[in-house]
Amino acid sequence: MNLILLFKGDFINDNKVRLEGRRLRHILEVQRVSLGEKLRVGLSEGLIGAGCVTSLNNTSLEMDVSLCKPPPAAMPVTLVLSLPRPKVLRRVLLSVTAIGVKQIVLLNSFRVEKSFWQSPVLSPENIQRQLVLGLEQACDTILPEVLLRPFFKPFAEDELPSLIKDSLAVVAHPGAQGPCPRDVHSPVTLAIGPEGGFIPYEIDKFISVGFKAVHFGERILNIESAVPSILSRLF
Amino acid sequence: MNLILLFKGDFINDNKVRLEGRRLRHILEVQRVSLGEKLRVGLSEGLIGAGCVTSLNNTSLEMDVSLCKPPPAAMPVTLVLSLPRPKVLRRVLLSVTAIGVKQIVLLNSFRVEKSFWQSPVLSPENIQRQLVLGLEQACDTILPEVLLRPFFKPFAEDELPSLIKDSLAVVAHPGAQGPCPRDVHSPVTLAIGPEGGFIPYEIDKFISVGFKAVHFGERILNIESAVPSILSRLF
Repeated sequence: MNLILLFKGDFINDNKVRLEGRRLRHILEVQRVSLGEKLRVGLSEGLIGAGCVTSLNNTSLEMDVSLCKPPPAAMPVTLVLSLPRPKVLRRVLLSVTAIGVKQIVLLNSFRVEKSFWQSPVLSPENIQRQLVLGLEQACDTILPEVLLRPFFKPFAEDELPSLIKDSLAVVAHPGAQGPCPRDVHSPVTLAIGPEGGFIPYEIDKFISVGFKAVHFGERILNIESAVPSILSRLF
Repeated sequence: MNLILLFKGDFINDNKVRLEGRRLRHILEVQRVSLGEKLRVGLSEGLIGAGCVTSLNNTSLEMDVSLCKPPPAAMPVTLVLSLPRPKVLRRVLLSVTAIGVKQIVLLNSFRVEKSFWQSPVLSPENIQRQLVLGLEQACDTILPEVLLRPFFKPFAEDELPSLIKDSLAVVAHPGAQGPCPRDVHSPVTLAIGPEGGFIPYEIDKFISVGFKAVHFGERILNIESAVPSILSRLF
């Protein structure tokens, strides 16, 4: 937690917040903060700044906060990700949020196990928790939007064409002809398949709406490494 | 497991191997292979190719293997990594092996918790297990070398100068002046600090032996995302 993310409900007046629960425990046990110390804070969907601890005990903490700086720039990318298995999804949501992705589509595809869609990791509360952890990691305040799309065909046919408008649309696919582009200066829509890749029907759908299939070298990376690697190559 | 990594001891004659244990279980339970099917295999430190299943039951499997293709190119980098906490280290060893790093130095630094050095994850067998998983993920056969350096100063003074010879030496450091270089065409030595970064004394040591401190943007990434992101930016 490199920044304490604050929400409107934390404010007890215009510039004073009271914290309890997870954030208090982190501040007490990991950051080991004392009265008068300053912490980096940010208001959800707003500015970042500092909070000065004015009251502290085992059940609550109060801070005077002043917010002055905008959060770091977002990465201009929409990430369309074939739904990973739940354990991996948790980590990926955190890491792509930290990297600065602001729109994430979790998509079904032929090689996604049906049971993954039943996972409690996909509940709004659990998704939100990982996004908040990602923002706290990267000192950001703007929550990404996460869309669940459990049906490939209607998403590909009805939503993808408008989703990719004005962006460079690439689907990472082992064995594709062209390499992943570098140092792109336009918005990107990036689709990444499951372990084992998208099936030819799915790749054809992506291509038919305007995606370009690109490869990322000979090595098959797991999703946790592939996503940051490809995003970092693109921007 | 995108490739079954074979070792000399698996061979029962020149081109026939017998497998038991973890690899057999994976082949039976995940890959669900039948007699006559072909699997991607590779000989540790050698070529990759195919294995045709000639005998299969619940306790062992035999394959006729033919090896013909070199493994994918290594990434020309030496990674000097401040020792992460054990759970993270396991994943990082796997992912950097998959990415193609062949020399990894796990280094002490001021902000590394002393207890991390006592972790069973650092035993040679446990390190080897993660490296093998990484090779199996990326269809590679060349095991990385992992060096443990629990003392910062003697490593920095006595070993680093020769380690970085003929390479571009960069240390990733939040707030450094220059950005991380892109698309480098020479060998690189990359040092990455702990959560919280190297302390000024450590950064000065790196710089005094010839490293350049570089930043990777405003966001603080966790090690699992930072390592693939930075490597992908470099090459």
